[in-house]
Amino acid sequence: MSDLPKAVIFHEEGPREGFQIEKQLYPLAQRIELVDALAASGLSQVQVGSFVKAVPSMADIEQLFAGILRRDGVRYTALWLNEGGFRRAQAAGTVDLSAYLMLYTTDALSLRNNNCTTAEQRERQRRWVTLYQEARLPIESAYVVTAFGCSFEGDVPLPVTLAAVKYIADLAAEFKFPLPRIMLADTVGWANPEDIRRRVGAVRDMLPDAKLGLHLHDTRGVGAANFYAALEMGVDLFDSSVAGLGGCPFANHANSQGAGNVCTEDMVFMCEEMGVATGIDLDRLIEAALLAERIIGRPLTGKLMHSGRLRRAATH
Amino acid sequence: MSDLPKAVIFHEEGPREGFQIEKQLYPLAQRIELVDALAASGLSQVQVGSFVKAVPSMADIEQLFAGILRRDGVRYTALWLNEGGFRRAQAAGTVDLSAYLMLYTTDALSLRNNNCTTAEQRERQRRWVTLYQEARLPIESAYVVTAFGCSFEGDVPLPVTLAAVKYIADLAAEFKFPLPRIMLADTVGWANPEDIRRRVGAVRDMLPDAKLGLHLHDTRGVGAANFYAALEMGVDLFDSSVAGLGGCPFANHANSQGAGNVCTEDMVFMCEEMGVATGIDLDRLIEAALLAERIIGRPLTGKLMHSGRLRRAATH
Repeated sequence: MSDLPKAVIFHEEGPREGFQIEKQLYPLAQRIELVDALAASGLSQVQVGSFVKAVPSMADIEQLFAGILRRDGVRYTALWLNEGGFRRAQAAGTVDLSAYLMLYTTDALSLRNNNCTTAEQRERQRRWVTLYQEARLPIESAYVVTAFGCSFEGDVPLPVTLAAVKYIADLAAEFKFPLPRIMLADTVGWANPEDIRRRVGAVRDMLPDAKLGLHLHDTRGVGAANFYAALEMGVDLFDSSVAGLGGCPFANHANSQGAGNVCTEDMVFMCEEMGVATGIDLDRLIEAALLAERIIGRPLTGKLMHSGRLRRAATH
Repeated sequence: MSDLPKAVIFHEEGPREGFQIEKQLYPLAQRIELVDALAASGLSQVQVGSFVKAVPSMADIEQLFAGILRRDGVRYTALWLNEGGFRRAQAAGTVDLSAYLMLYTTDALSLRNNNCTTAEQRERQRRWVTLYQEARLPIESAYVVTAFGCSFEGDVPLPVTLAAVKYIADLAAEFKFPLPRIMLADTVGWANPEDIRRRVGAVRDMLPDAKLGLHLHDTRGVGAANFYAALEMGVDLFDSSVAGLGGCPFANHANSQGAGNVCTEDMVFMCEEMGVATGIDLDRLIEAALLAERIIGRPLTGKLMHSGRLRRAATH
């Protein structure tokens, strides 16, 4: 048998990933209900949304945060892409501020998302470090966006990914903060299982003590295999989306249908079936997935929510 | 890196798996076009349909076989479930008769599908061996249905699966035919990657020289991970369905939406990305998947067909 981790943590991103790509503002009460349902399933972290003004479906993010039932042991986090967003998240007073850095590997995507080159985006992280340190926030994670490949520039060579990781480590040394979790993001669904193993292994070789997580998308139907390959490498933290919600409109040229994060409940199912603990009540999580589907109003890509759990007790 | 096989063979089942669950008879010309498109993609085997009278969507199976363009190097196979069906397939004169045995692991599913117990179903295989030997057909494969678990009886203990495999080996010895390919079928989407590794390993231990294949369903979103785990064990033959077509109405209590075989083009993509040769032209296969979706008339679950291949050349 493989050397899988004993337990895995899921960071739920559905409420953000799933709704940020939608052009409409869904009813607040329904979105509150979804966040509450996710938190009730045993997830320890739910990313509620983004403080990003340009996204219509996030226009009422403050009200969303104000409306959720705050459950002990659950962190309700958010994304911000600029200082204004961060200040709004701070001012809300209701956000569990999980500070993160974000590094890019290709100029094309960085220019598109940040209006600056990869190098400039790295420089900007120094400003973020200062902001977070002034706010006395620990820097919890550092994302390497398109750590595997980019829809615009193609394969990302391993040394480029490692250079981004090294930049994070150097920043931590320079600004004297503990090395954050290194999150390798397969932003556009470029990775394959062997490449997952290769890059996770290379980051481990470079930074043996680093905590490592993966942000995986199922853009091309191999997300579950990438997830399993990461488990085999001992990775024990994953971003995922309930019901497979999501897909980034800026990350991919093509139709983004079904290009969301790996599906939380399907991956929880895989873990639990293999004896890897998740702390999650799968029945409740499936209920949350079905709720997400009712809210979005079209079939979502999650499988377990449609086929049901394994029935171990005989029914005949 | 893992010890993956150098090359993998896909047995395409979409035209059978995808259409047998439909209540209507789709236009013959479209189904001919689909089989022709699949064969043109480089697949070496396409299962065209079933000689099963009870299935309305297979009513014109003889005409379908008569209409397809026969391409060199492609085998056009069929399923039959009883002697009448086999005789029809023989009489058609157009079917590449790939003889197979089929063993069950649970009485509940065997009674439902065959109206007899597992033991009786095994006895019936002796009759099939005789029929095939009289027809001078090599017995190419032997399926162990629900080799991992059953929707009615739950987990299938490993010794039960191994007993079915042993029965096949004993039949081969008794009737003096070469051991057929052992096909472990995850008929209802019960397996997880670790169980794939465990059962493949156990069959290998028992029959080191056996050729081994897997018939996987993506019922609960872990099909791609199961596929990868099998690759890691060196398995190099898989049944799959273009566009993820399929789902067995008799195999599962719950909604069978999206419960088809693992998706051929998504798995071919995974293989090719990892340097595992498939002999398949992925662009042509994607075209066939999109054709299948147009024929069925609703979105199918394949991902690559919707998101597109990786674009390695810069487009900006």
